[in-house]
Amino acid sequence: MSKVENTVKGWQGVPFSAVRIDDAFWRPRLEALKNVTIDVCLRKCEETNRIANFALAGGLAEGKYEGMYYNDSDVYKVLEGAAYSLMTDRDPKLEAEVDRIIGLIEAAQESDGYLSTYYTVEAPDLKWTDMEKHEMYNGGHLIEAAVAYYQATGKRRLLDVACRMADHYDALFGPGKRHWAEGHEEIELALVKLFRATGEERYWKLALWLLEERGHGHGVGAIWDKPDWGPAYCQDDVPVRDIHEVKGHAVRAMYLYTAMADVVLASGDPAYLDALDRVWAHTVERNMYVTGGIGPSVHNEGFTHDYDLPNESAYCETCAAIAMAFWNHRMNLLHGDGKYADIVERELFNGALSGISLSGDRFFYVNPLASKGEHHRVEWFHTSCCPTNLARFLPSIGQYAYAKAEDGITVNQYMGSETTVELNGGRKVRIVQSTAYPWNGRITLAVTPEQAGEFAVRLRLPGWCKGYRAAVQGQAVGGVEALAQKGYLVLKRQWAPGDTIELELDMPVEAVRSRHEVEANRGRIAIQRGPVVYCAEQAGNAELGCDAFALDAQAAFAVQHRGELLGGVTVLHGRTAEGAPCELIPYYAWDNREPGFMQVWHREAEDRGLYRS
Amino acid sequence: MSKVENTVKGWQGVPFSAVRIDDAFWRPRLEALKNVTIDVCLRKCEETNRIANFALAGGLAEGKYEGMYYNDSDVYKVLEGAAYSLMTDRDPKLEAEVDRIIGLIEAAQESDGYLSTYYTVEAPDLKWTDMEKHEMYNGGHLIEAAVAYYQATGKRRLLDVACRMADHYDALFGPGKRHWAEGHEEIELALVKLFRATGEERYWKLALWLLEERGHGHGVGAIWDKPDWGPAYCQDDVPVRDIHEVKGHAVRAMYLYTAMADVVLASGDPAYLDALDRVWAHTVERNMYVTGGIGPSVHNEGFTHDYDLPNESAYCETCAAIAMAFWNHRMNLLHGDGKYADIVERELFNGALSGISLSGDRFFYVNPLASKGEHHRVEWFHTSCCPTNLARFLPSIGQYAYAKAEDGITVNQYMGSETTVELNGGRKVRIVQSTAYPWNGRITLAVTPEQAGEFAVRLRLPGWCKGYRAAVQGQAVGGVEALAQKGYLVLKRQWAPGDTIELELDMPVEAVRSRHEVEANRGRIAIQRGPVVYCAEQAGNAELGCDAFALDAQAAFAVQHRGELLGGVTVLHGRTAEGAPCELIPYYAWDNREPGFMQVWHREAEDRGLYRS
Repeated sequence: MSKVENTVKGWQGVPFSAVRIDDAFWRPRLEALKNVTIDVCLRKCEETNRIANFALAGGLAEGKYEGMYYNDSDVYKVLEGAAYSLMTDRDPKLEAEVDRIIGLIEAAQESDGYLSTYYTVEAPDLKWTDMEKHEMYNGGHLIEAAVAYYQATGKRRLLDVACRMADHYDALFGPGKRHWAEGHEEIELALVKLFRATGEERYWKLALWLLEERGHGHGVGAIWDKPDWGPAYCQDDVPVRDIHEVKGHAVRAMYLYTAMADVVLASGDPAYLDALDRVWAHTVERNMYVTGGIGPSVHNEGFTHDYDLPNESAYCETCAAIAMAFWNHRMNLLHGDGKYADIVERELFNGALSGISLSGDRFFYVNPLASKGEHHRVEWFHTSCCPTNLARFLPSIGQYAYAKAEDGITVNQYMGSETTVELNGGRKVRIVQSTAYPWNGRITLAVTPEQAGEFAVRLRLPGWCKGYRAAVQGQAVGGVEALAQKGYLVLKRQWAPGDTIELELDMPVEAVRSRHEVEANRGRIAIQRGPVVYCAEQAGNAELGCDAFALDAQAAFAVQHRGELLGGVTVLHGRTAEGAPCELIPYYAWDNREPGFMQVWHREAEDRGLYRS
Repeated sequence: MSKVENTVKGWQGVPFSAVRIDDAFWRPRLEALKNVTIDVCLRKCEETNRIANFALAGGLAEGKYEGMYYNDSDVYKVLEGAAYSLMTDRDPKLEAEVDRIIGLIEAAQESDGYLSTYYTVEAPDLKWTDMEKHEMYNGGHLIEAAVAYYQATGKRRLLDVACRMADHYDALFGPGKRHWAEGHEEIELALVKLFRATGEERYWKLALWLLEERGHGHGVGAIWDKPDWGPAYCQDDVPVRDIHEVKGHAVRAMYLYTAMADVVLASGDPAYLDALDRVWAHTVERNMYVTGGIGPSVHNEGFTHDYDLPNESAYCETCAAIAMAFWNHRMNLLHGDGKYADIVERELFNGALSGISLSGDRFFYVNPLASKGEHHRVEWFHTSCCPTNLARFLPSIGQYAYAKAEDGITVNQYMGSETTVELNGGRKVRIVQSTAYPWNGRITLAVTPEQAGEFAVRLRLPGWCKGYRAAVQGQAVGGVEALAQKGYLVLKRQWAPGDTIELELDMPVEAVRSRHEVEANRGRIAIQRGPVVYCAEQAGNAELGCDAFALDAQAAFAVQHRGELLGGVTVLHGRTAEGAPCELIPYYAWDNREPGFMQVWHREAEDRGLYRS
């Protein structure tokens, strides 16, 4: 930690609590989340004894621990999601249920602050002997839930539990104390959240210490003993500042990088910055699916070798896509560069969103880019991290919409919403965003500062957008002011209450190709429109067989918004190279009709043209 | 001619005389053409004694023939352009001047019908001894002018001259008479026009005979004796039905294929169809610049070897681009396929239009795709085919806008215009088209049949367009009706007077790449938006040097319409990969400001992304 310098002045996030989403695309998803998903998850946590395990640990019931040792985390994640939901829609019944569960959690905590029901119930003597056993992973999710519930309701009860637990960690681990390289990262980013919620620097320092523990041979437990996984599986193969390549379990890796980005925002350690930049490039430029999915392999739930991106066997865990959004959001704040918010967007509309059915009660753990027809969402999993991750991710997406830059406001995600941001210097600015995104690229923003003054409004120009027009108060923005800077249109000028920005992003249908190194996609194209990756599925394509047709990359699609279909989607109708009609729908919306094949990458018809775009 | 069968039922053209253009893009060009270009060309024809040569030949003056042996053709071409102009704007002064010149032409015609002033004045004994000497080429242009003037004014005088000349040809040449393989094709397509204007089948048959003469060793003259040109230079190397590859002089080749397409429309000869399809693919898929320019070499004003498309030394004669439009228009009628109208469009907005200054009085003969700053339009050339070809091409572009299909009307080109078409069966339908094309892709069409009834309206979906929306009477067109057929949206339905079609073509900025075989463009991109190819020129890019910057294919451009610039153009403002602002303007509009470098193909910045569109 000798190199730590406070040099990074990143942007600041605008918490989801400050953002109200009112949007044709997201509102129905958030309603389903609130009305269906959280209920389903709570019920399943009950049915599978995930909640009962807390009662067991607290001595409030008798019986045997059931399920996996990380099952506590699912309960915490649902509570976190419930907290976000309560923040926008206070629901006394839900709040009472959460309070009931918090009572069980409180009871389950041991007197020294220890909290992981598996060990308390089943193996109290084996605590802290196997770093793979998710003790701190569970703890991290407790912290996230506690911070969220405190912010939502002002109630400290769960936060106090979390602080006692974190203090217990701090007593056991740290410089001169015991070593610990947690097998599944999560605690590190959670401790930073706890630091932010409480102002207690020891939590931030403990997070940093835990990061620094990795890669020094301290790891002990089942993972480290598995010869074909080894320490790289849980990113314990090299010290974090020496990371060059993304490796191992995808969710673990993303949670690690998220925490590193959180920590470097405060520490400014250039070695962390360099490591993050290296591993970001390695992840995004060699190991990410077009949907934003990561981690191709079922074997390690993670990474294999560069450009190994098979479609039908793609693992692409929902949690990993969500975690990519976490990490890239932090990278955006760190660098003030829109290319990271592009990845957040990619996850929002594709790799993460595909994890949940339109009804809100069915989930994918695995998100392949092709299926012969056997792959379907289900209600729950034995290891059910993905449903519960969706339950907390979706209700908090508002936090990705805006950021606070040193000189003004950044609009990172386009969604009908409003927020009020207090700029440096104290000026409050209200932003009201109206758009039919992602179905078209027209965005209107009303900018209302308390009083007129100069500041910057940054508008992200997504990577898929090649042409745009902007106007302020009906006057076209031109000249150098119209040019992108780090992926943003930067409108730095005098703003007066009620000023209106109109932004129009060209949103054409595009045929996308992979680098040649991706063997699975050679001779194939994917179709994308704006941020939305499209797929063909059997439903709507009765005449087509799986991978039994080709598309001409130059052919035109009829673009039709169909409000009645799949919750309202813009559908692309075209013809295969063989002349059959074909219907492409957003990837996230597949498997919401009759079962059948699905594919994102289509065989490309021979292109004899001399020029292609 | 044994295989001739009447099997082709192509579409029919809608003559320019039936199309009124009222369009923000074209109207100023047509005004400049009428008010400036035709005057300039007539004045130059006068100054260079091109007109005086007719007086000499007619014995109305004394002196020596001046200029090249094909100079008659320039006078004819300007008269043809003047005729088109008179058709829409009757101008007594211009008409009187044309009539005066017609008097001279009439006088220059010999009593047997022969008409080519060079031979009459300079070498009467050498007539018909050198097939390169453009005797019939001149004659062809006379015919085209005569037909146009007859259609414009109803005056037969020049048409009678043309018929006497054609009858003279018919008397000399044909089965059992003398052989003739005209060195510069043109007469063949002209004879078909004469057939259509007069109904005299002998003209069509003579055209067919002249086509069939080629490739049988009948060629005699200077070309054939030049060892490095040989018969391929003028497409006399193989019989036309055996053509596989585009060869030789570009304009000659295009005029040949145009005539073949004209003839096959009547004859239906499948061998002609096959030859045309082969040579079209060979031209478009291997030997056409992105601007639509053809013929890379100054040496033969024509083709070299496949994929030889150098940029700075590109010849790309203006006449060749115009001739590509002629040919592709016929191919469109022949096959009812929009891909040929795409090429017409490419020429209209790029390769042909670049030939003329915005002022209408400066011309390119050669249209390179890169220049270090030495290449500029001038008022006239010693061989001045290009200015006079523009003078007749531009005022007749209305003929490319619509076509008559067996079952209805086809909209081939988008331009503010109106026409009335009489469908098969006699129903007249008026179409009024409104659009700001090519600056955006929104087109409104009012369809007014005399009385309601079923017919098809075909709307071309340009090759560059990947996504479109259409509505009839405000109702979105969906399902199979919305799908392209041979490059068209086919709206076959019951139409009532005043029905309105709205078509919206996505018109994004696109980075275009060449096939790898094009060495000149390796590692380079061109920027296109809709049908318009863009370039960078020194003016507007003071900070940039020729080929001294790179563009990132994924970067976004600010799209700005600037009504005050270059006659009103949509400009693309972006940043080079090095971060400098850069301004791209339509290629056709370059060299209308201060001189300096220009380039269409830009070095592409390294692309590290995993996916690209």
